[in-house]
Amino acid sequence: MSETKKNPRLRDVIMIGAGPSALAAAVYTTREDIDTLLLEKGVIGGLAAITDIIDNYPGFSEGVSGLDLAQELQQQAERFGAEIELAEVKEIVDEGELKLVKTDGGDLRAKAVLIATGSDYKKLGIPGEMEYYGRGVHYCATCDGAFYRDKRLIVVGGGNSAAQEALFLTRFASKIDMLIRSDKMRASEVLQHRLHKEPKIKLHFNTTTDEILAEDGNVVAVKGTDKTKNEAVRIDTDGVFVFVGQKPTTEFLKSSGIELDEIGFIKTDEKLMTSMEGVFASGDVRSGATMQIASAVGEGATAALRIREYLED
Amino acid sequence: MSETKKNPRLRDVIMIGAGPSALAAAVYTTREDIDTLLLEKGVIGGLAAITDIIDNYPGFSEGVSGLDLAQELQQQAERFGAEIELAEVKEIVDEGELKLVKTDGGDLRAKAVLIATGSDYKKLGIPGEMEYYGRGVHYCATCDGAFYRDKRLIVVGGGNSAAQEALFLTRFASKIDMLIRSDKMRASEVLQHRLHKEPKIKLHFNTTTDEILAEDGNVVAVKGTDKTKNEAVRIDTDGVFVFVGQKPTTEFLKSSGIELDEIGFIKTDEKLMTSMEGVFASGDVRSGATMQIASAVGEGATAALRIREYLED
Repeated sequence: MSETKKNPRLRDVIMIGAGPSALAAAVYTTREDIDTLLLEKGVIGGLAAITDIIDNYPGFSEGVSGLDLAQELQQQAERFGAEIELAEVKEIVDEGELKLVKTDGGDLRAKAVLIATGSDYKKLGIPGEMEYYGRGVHYCATCDGAFYRDKRLIVVGGGNSAAQEALFLTRFASKIDMLIRSDKMRASEVLQHRLHKEPKIKLHFNTTTDEILAEDGNVVAVKGTDKTKNEAVRIDTDGVFVFVGQKPTTEFLKSSGIELDEIGFIKTDEKLMTSMEGVFASGDVRSGATMQIASAVGEGATAALRIREYLED
Repeated sequence: MSETKKNPRLRDVIMIGAGPSALAAAVYTTREDIDTLLLEKGVIGGLAAITDIIDNYPGFSEGVSGLDLAQELQQQAERFGAEIELAEVKEIVDEGELKLVKTDGGDLRAKAVLIATGSDYKKLGIPGEMEYYGRGVHYCATCDGAFYRDKRLIVVGGGNSAAQEALFLTRFASKIDMLIRSDKMRASEVLQHRLHKEPKIKLHFNTTTDEILAEDGNVVAVKGTDKTKNEAVRIDTDGVFVFVGQKPTTEFLKSSGIELDEIGFIKTDEKLMTSMEGVFASGDVRSGATMQIASAVGEGATAALRIREYLED
């Protein structure tokens, strides 16, 4: 498929995003001599690259730093010939055999497209949150809960995922304070019932989360406001888990007609193809994603093989 | 869920197999304090452990030896508390909330089961095949094709997968001799047409593959028999790819009622659950598997999260 290499504006595959899923896919496509361009608007390596220590990516028995893993993935993809460009994709247009990929650096075309733009956890936007991201402030209990055995935790949020994850975190934490902005929870009755029964969990309704406080580089407390009394509260903790929603990076697909689920994640079939023929999706941006690097990488490899089949047909 | 730890015969999860998919799943379950036992009848690390160099497992930019990757996976799972026992599973019986797992070492029970027994490539059973497994004799073009740039190859087989993989290998190899036992191919007409048009490929019908010859540890030729003339043939080559079918390790499921596809791979739903409630499957044994370590590992992680949800319900 190297005939497309002569034209830098026409590629076999364009991958949107350069996180673990796209990089894994690129290892596979480039190793099979499929001309592959990755377009990244932010950080190569995605969320993984800005994660302190990753303990659960299979193959690193003692864990690996997010930055190291991201660099390994990038080097591996580039070793086989993947090209990575910094560009923001604005739109994908179905032209039949080719897909038009409009970017802030001009128009590109490809025979197949992989969307692996990931998703991001919604942030509180409060002081201390970004400073201690991954080092005291977390968004994924499966990823980071195990670092808090016999420690105190604060969970922020009142929806189903906050409730589920708080219950899950009781396996590790000795005590969990749950800060809920409203006077009631959005979580299901069943989950609320379980929360009330769980002795490790204390619910704080009508309480905003205003600031994350640290000492010597370690998170030590959260400052909030009790809205019923309109007074400041300070709750000591060893870590904060924020579960206020997720936001897939799919804004740019609005005009494409590619089918999304109600939250905005991309729907795919069993071959990881989207509703637009020849356009695939993998990793955290996909509806049903587990938000785990291992799963994103695995889906990247699978998507690459499905793309190869698609290109051969 | 540690209450089950007191009874070594009753576990939260039993995983059947200890290849990359089960080991990845075990990293996740044990890290979440789900009591996990892996039962392996053969080699810990599965097919990966007996693969020489793995170039396409994402995260190792320069490749990793199969043995090293298998050991890392095992250590990582054991670090979080996974237990691995050598035992052969004979049967799974649905007892409702518990699953009875009959082994050659006695009966065990678990709340959930993950089947990750993998599959194996069918072998020719000829001299030289096992001696040069992974070092001149291969069963996966996606895995090992790239090692044969501008080299000569022999492909054994006459079905769809042999035809597809031979065509794929023309990206790398300078010349491919294809040995087909019968006087015609089982591959589709379309594929046969493409094989005939491909100048790099030469088809040898009515030709058996009898022995793989090596010199100084390197594969140099294949000895076969031209059945029409009933005379021995010798074809020089740098490597041999065998595509004569695959065999999932699912014999032990025959009496379980777990639904298999026509070849014997396990059917699963979008949560990787089999037709038996509480019994999941991941990796190469699953219907639709890509036979890639990355995908098997990713599915292992996904299965672990689905098992956690199942156990919590």
